[in-house]
Amino acid sequence: MNEDAKMNQVDAMPDPSRRKFLNSAALAGLAGAGLSVGLSACNKESAPAPSAAPAAAPAAAPKAAASDLHLHMKPGELDTYYGVWSGGHSGECRILGLPSGREIKRIPTFNVDCMSGWGITNESKKIIGTRPDGRLKYMTGDTHHIHGSYTDGTFNGKYFWVNDKIHGRLGRIRGDIFECDAITELPNIQGFHGIFPDKRDPVDPAINYTTRVFCGNEFHIPQPNDGRDLDDPTKYFCLFTCVDAETMEVRWQAKIDGNMDLVATSYDGRFAASNQYNTEGGARYEDMMSAEMDACVFFDVARVEQAIKDGKFMTIGSSKVPVVDGTKAANTDPKTALTGYVPVPKNPHGVNASPDGKYFICSGKLSPTCTVIELAKVADWFDGKLDDIRKAVVAEVEVGLGPLHTTFDGRGNAFTTLFLDSQIVKWNVDKAIQFFGGDKNAQYVVDRIDVHYQPGHINASMGETKEADGQFLAVGCKFSKDRFLPVGPMHPENEQLIDIRGEKMVLLADHPVHPEPHDFIIVKRDIIKTKQVGTLDDHPLAVKDAKDSGVFRDGNKVTVKIASLAPAYTLREFELKVGDEVTLILTNLDKVEDLSHGFAIPKYDINFVVNPQETKSVTFKADKPGVFWAYCTHFCHALHLEMRSRMIVRP
Amino acid sequence: MNEDAKMNQVDAMPDPSRRKFLNSAALAGLAGAGLSVGLSACNKESAPAPSAAPAAAPAAAPKAAASDLHLHMKPGELDTYYGVWSGGHSGECRILGLPSGREIKRIPTFNVDCMSGWGITNESKKIIGTRPDGRLKYMTGDTHHIHGSYTDGTFNGKYFWVNDKIHGRLGRIRGDIFECDAITELPNIQGFHGIFPDKRDPVDPAINYTTRVFCGNEFHIPQPNDGRDLDDPTKYFCLFTCVDAETMEVRWQAKIDGNMDLVATSYDGRFAASNQYNTEGGARYEDMMSAEMDACVFFDVARVEQAIKDGKFMTIGSSKVPVVDGTKAANTDPKTALTGYVPVPKNPHGVNASPDGKYFICSGKLSPTCTVIELAKVADWFDGKLDDIRKAVVAEVEVGLGPLHTTFDGRGNAFTTLFLDSQIVKWNVDKAIQFFGGDKNAQYVVDRIDVHYQPGHINASMGETKEADGQFLAVGCKFSKDRFLPVGPMHPENEQLIDIRGEKMVLLADHPVHPEPHDFIIVKRDIIKTKQVGTLDDHPLAVKDAKDSGVFRDGNKVTVKIASLAPAYTLREFELKVGDEVTLILTNLDKVEDLSHGFAIPKYDINFVVNPQETKSVTFKADKPGVFWAYCTHFCHALHLEMRSRMIVRP
Repeated sequence: MNEDAKMNQVDAMPDPSRRKFLNSAALAGLAGAGLSVGLSACNKESAPAPSAAPAAAPAAAPKAAASDLHLHMKPGELDTYYGVWSGGHSGECRILGLPSGREIKRIPTFNVDCMSGWGITNESKKIIGTRPDGRLKYMTGDTHHIHGSYTDGTFNGKYFWVNDKIHGRLGRIRGDIFECDAITELPNIQGFHGIFPDKRDPVDPAINYTTRVFCGNEFHIPQPNDGRDLDDPTKYFCLFTCVDAETMEVRWQAKIDGNMDLVATSYDGRFAASNQYNTEGGARYEDMMSAEMDACVFFDVARVEQAIKDGKFMTIGSSKVPVVDGTKAANTDPKTALTGYVPVPKNPHGVNASPDGKYFICSGKLSPTCTVIELAKVADWFDGKLDDIRKAVVAEVEVGLGPLHTTFDGRGNAFTTLFLDSQIVKWNVDKAIQFFGGDKNAQYVVDRIDVHYQPGHINASMGETKEADGQFLAVGCKFSKDRFLPVGPMHPENEQLIDIRGEKMVLLADHPVHPEPHDFIIVKRDIIKTKQVGTLDDHPLAVKDAKDSGVFRDGNKVTVKIASLAPAYTLREFELKVGDEVTLILTNLDKVEDLSHGFAIPKYDINFVVNPQETKSVTFKADKPGVFWAYCTHFCHALHLEMRSRMIVRP
Repeated sequence: MNEDAKMNQVDAMPDPSRRKFLNSAALAGLAGAGLSVGLSACNKESAPAPSAAPAAAPAAAPKAAASDLHLHMKPGELDTYYGVWSGGHSGECRILGLPSGREIKRIPTFNVDCMSGWGITNESKKIIGTRPDGRLKYMTGDTHHIHGSYTDGTFNGKYFWVNDKIHGRLGRIRGDIFECDAITELPNIQGFHGIFPDKRDPVDPAINYTTRVFCGNEFHIPQPNDGRDLDDPTKYFCLFTCVDAETMEVRWQAKIDGNMDLVATSYDGRFAASNQYNTEGGARYEDMMSAEMDACVFFDVARVEQAIKDGKFMTIGSSKVPVVDGTKAANTDPKTALTGYVPVPKNPHGVNASPDGKYFICSGKLSPTCTVIELAKVADWFDGKLDDIRKAVVAEVEVGLGPLHTTFDGRGNAFTTLFLDSQIVKWNVDKAIQFFGGDKNAQYVVDRIDVHYQPGHINASMGETKEADGQFLAVGCKFSKDRFLPVGPMHPENEQLIDIRGEKMVLLADHPVHPEPHDFIIVKRDIIKTKQVGTLDDHPLAVKDAKDSGVFRDGNKVTVKIASLAPAYTLREFELKVGDEVTLILTNLDKVEDLSHGFAIPKYDINFVVNPQETKSVTFKADKPGVFWAYCTHFCHALHLEMRSRMIVRP
């Protein structure tokens, strides 16, 4: 590297020595450099020192560059993009209006939401899943990655998929109503991390839309995990999973070396890939970061599915899902390999597809580098035309400390979050390839900007599509410290918005959010077509006419049918007996957009909302005698307070 | 009324005939005027026509008046006020930064929040309450009104109280950590609606701060509600409740005629009051609105408490709480009366205390009027100096259709939400008194502004204190319709912000929110003093030293003690046996602000967060054999993904 180029690349990095690969010693060094905190009470035997907490992260003032991006919507003015957000360990998803950053909707998914009745109504319980006694199987969830369905390389607005890391579930959000309509628990998975839908079919070129969702798996466990092989870590492994986009059934799984985190898919449909850390198979973090290189594992989807057709699969435990062997050892011949492991430095994290369809970019996390993998060369390796799959790496350049995720502006530039540096680095992919190819004058770093603080995911407007339009990007910052009024020990996280239209990035706004704004995509508003009023026929039990209301008894099985019409329920009162098993069905016969009603039953722990023309039901046991005024919880009318139904439970 | 005055008062009211009291016929008339919707499927026998839905509400453009109020915080800039919000049937509370409108924190209260572990940890379950089998007693809640503790007539930032309407509970939020620390279920209450803390002691003038919280009760039920008297509505009644601000124990209750909604307290500590609708005792809304006048019931707190000292009380069912008789019939002699019923037009809703301490203002809801009650005259009535309590009404003026709630600018002006008109009306209290006193030239209406749409609560900066500063107000609009990008049948609600510094109000911003932003107060930021890091000693079970970690077994009762120090848990693995009853205690030994950790156990449905120096615990049964990688869910470190503990459950 000549001096000029070096100066260019290390701009804003005062200590070039920090830019070596990070190993345990280097991390300890970081601690010494002021990035470690709270260690005084640390027993080094049980919890070693490495800590790169945000306390001493730079809180530099925003750069002076100005932006004229229209950010603040005037009253009544609509945003121009939808933000589709995962909500981390809140278990929910969220819809934002962008660029204003306003949260328009929470979508309860793996969590319980007593406002809408998610986890309370029979309809939502069926989606979430229940135990034999009727209780919810799970009330917790940890949504990480959310991605949309594609047609012709861009979002079609039909579906969004999101994972639950805690319990290994894939959820689907309908784009027309922004509600969860399906959840699938993946078999034999623990720590379900990355997901990505495919962008076209790997076999049939006529199918130019999403039909599969690929799922990475992070935690290695004994298979099946029923108490066997607890003490033999060599028996532990992970599974990569393919789910059908329409039926939400699991199509197949693949046994893999290492722990998978993020997932990407190629625009031509041939490849899915997942970054991997802990190819060491360690159980302690020191062991998980002992090797200098991990990998990005590629799946040749058509070959995997042909192998299954050919009967080359096993099953695990009680699961009927076919499982192919995708381990390195079983895929040594490229021409028949189902998988190819591209070596990537130390514990890589994000893998992102460039909008020109040519590259996957892996972020180093514990290496200060991004790795550019050329997909045509990966294909060459699978086709026997490239001797070493590592030769598919066309660039591996230093970008800063703790690179995690990358997005794109559609003009050849990549934007990578640097967790340890609390920065975003903008770099030019072609220049990085030139630099890696030997042109040390190629100045690939274009700009850096401080963010506040410790950024994780990043995504630009339409950045996950061929239509990446380079207007602005959002970045999910894990720490907010001093950015908002103090609210006690539990801090909000900080979504920041950055103008990327010019050469220099411009920080536009801080938005505090309930943890965790994990991942997100930014979709042009004309792609989303919503249905603003329900359809009576969508629910088989709809009370379509007020005259159909009533209490219908079959022994102690009682069905209560009610309709709502502002400001009244059709049943002003209804009677039950202690011991009755009651199913209450409520249809909202109001037809006007936004005229929703709620239904709460005091002491019976029931509340839910019915939107116009929708039907919901709940099932409960009448176990308390007395009078219980069911009432409307969703403000609907001047006589909303008076909108009640008297439930009489006779002893 | 002369023509000029009339023109002034009816400004923006095209049809003066609409300004009569609303009775059933008038409401039906509204329907005819285009305010009714969705009635085609309505069976008039079971669900009569009255409906004043928002469909045809005016969507006028904001007025042209400009505002220079500093609204949009630059990156890193802090807001100047805290907004303390109730969350309606989401069951939570919220902290906003104002005037930016950014939501800084959700405070789980009556709901379940799988992010923080509210409803999952032993500590939160103890506050919420459990059933004999250990499950939560309730997972739903409906927060309506939130108010702060006072010293010397202004907020002191110590506590905020919020009600749960569904199950009749009072919750308390600590102002130093913005977390719920206590929940009390009120005995023999259904439909707990308004609350208000007192502002000084009614007996001891030295106690110039909040010691009691008063609670209104909306739904009349048989007492006790155990299945008796189901068919005799004359036996149904409501209870007004006084809760101790510190101990959160119920001090006393009072039997009352009618249904109570909002509550107010006087600055001198003598009176609490509650607006009442359904003094008819009806069970159908038509019956609840048949009388032309309802009431605002006043409680002479010192007299009530003396009566209890004198043994003049009953108890109800198994409750030990003393209950005085506050019905009209039992309080006919003003000089000994515990209560006084001030007649107020038809189904009044809000009651608000003016910051000068002189007046309570009742909003008519079904009458187009606000009623101004002079507290000195109410005192005169209780002291035998005023023959008719209705003479305490010093003004009753028409303001518009559907008046619900009122706030103040500290400069003599009141701002009242008009639900049916979708407006806020600004009116001058002194001018209204002059007008009602006979001066028909007194132009009390100062300004009107359209809001979007159907406003409920309203509150101005410091508007509930003697320090009302008249900077801006927030208004919770129940419908948002076309104000934001469409997101399906479930709409957000709309919090609007309005500049009230000048004579004309100026609409500043729309903020979409998860339903329901029910009520709120706006507090100057220097009043709130938060504690940003926990204290180890706050939890008796804290694992104060990493060396104290371990698995401690007593038969099948197992205690697992773990500490967290980024990026590791002190126990990298721990072993259990199927059948163990496990209590897991986790202390976060990190000391740096914002360095929180999570702890999730896959398939065991556990997740919670521990903030720096905090301790949390969970209790569960080890009922599944295998390996379960507990992991950190709250992003903490570059090695966050590697922060795990292997829980091994042996068969």
